[in-house]
Amino acid sequence: MQYRAEVTIERKSGMLDPEGTTIKRALEHLGYHTNDIKTSKRYIIDLEEESSELAETKVDEMCQKLIANPMIHNYTIDLREV
Amino acid sequence: MQYRAEVTIERKSGMLDPEGTTIKRALEHLGYHTNDIKTSKRYIIDLEEESSELAETKVDEMCQKLIANPMIHNYTIDLREV
Repeated sequence: MQYRAEVTIERKSGMLDPEGTTIKRALEHLGYHTNDIKTSKRYIIDLEEESSELAETKVDEMCQKLIANPMIHNYTIDLREV
Repeated sequence: MQYRAEVTIERKSGMLDPEGTTIKRALEHLGYHTNDIKTSKRYIIDLEEESSELAETKVDEMCQKLIANPMIHNYTIDLREV
C-alpha cells in the first residue's frame, strides 16, 4: 500500500525560535508589526508499507532517529493512504 | 481584533528540494526506504488588525516582500480570529 505522511516539527514551548524572531524584526523594518512569529517545518513522506500501522511506526522511527530532535522538538504525524 | 495566520511555503512543482533529497538519502543509510520526501515551511503569525480582510492583505504583503520568493515558492495563508 502507498502512504503519505505529513510530519510537522515544532519547537517545544519555551524553546527559542531565532528564525521567527529575525523575521519579526525584519518585518518591523518594512513597516509590518506582528505580535509573534513562530516557525515550523513540514515533511511530506511518500512510502510503501503493508499496513497503515507499519507505515506509522516507520515514520515515527524516522522522526526519532533523524528528522526531529526529541530534546527540543514536538512532532505530529498525519498519515493517509494514497 | 487579534488574528493568527498560518502561512505554508512550498516549492513550485519542478523546483529541486535539496533538503528532501538529503533526508531521503540519509534515511536509506539508516535502512528506511521512502519513495519521495518534500519539505515545506510554516509560519504562525500573530497580528492585530481592524478586520480579517486587512489582516489577510497585510500577511499577503509580508509573504511577497519577505517570507516567500514568488519565483520559486507557492504559499497559502490560513487566517482565523483568536
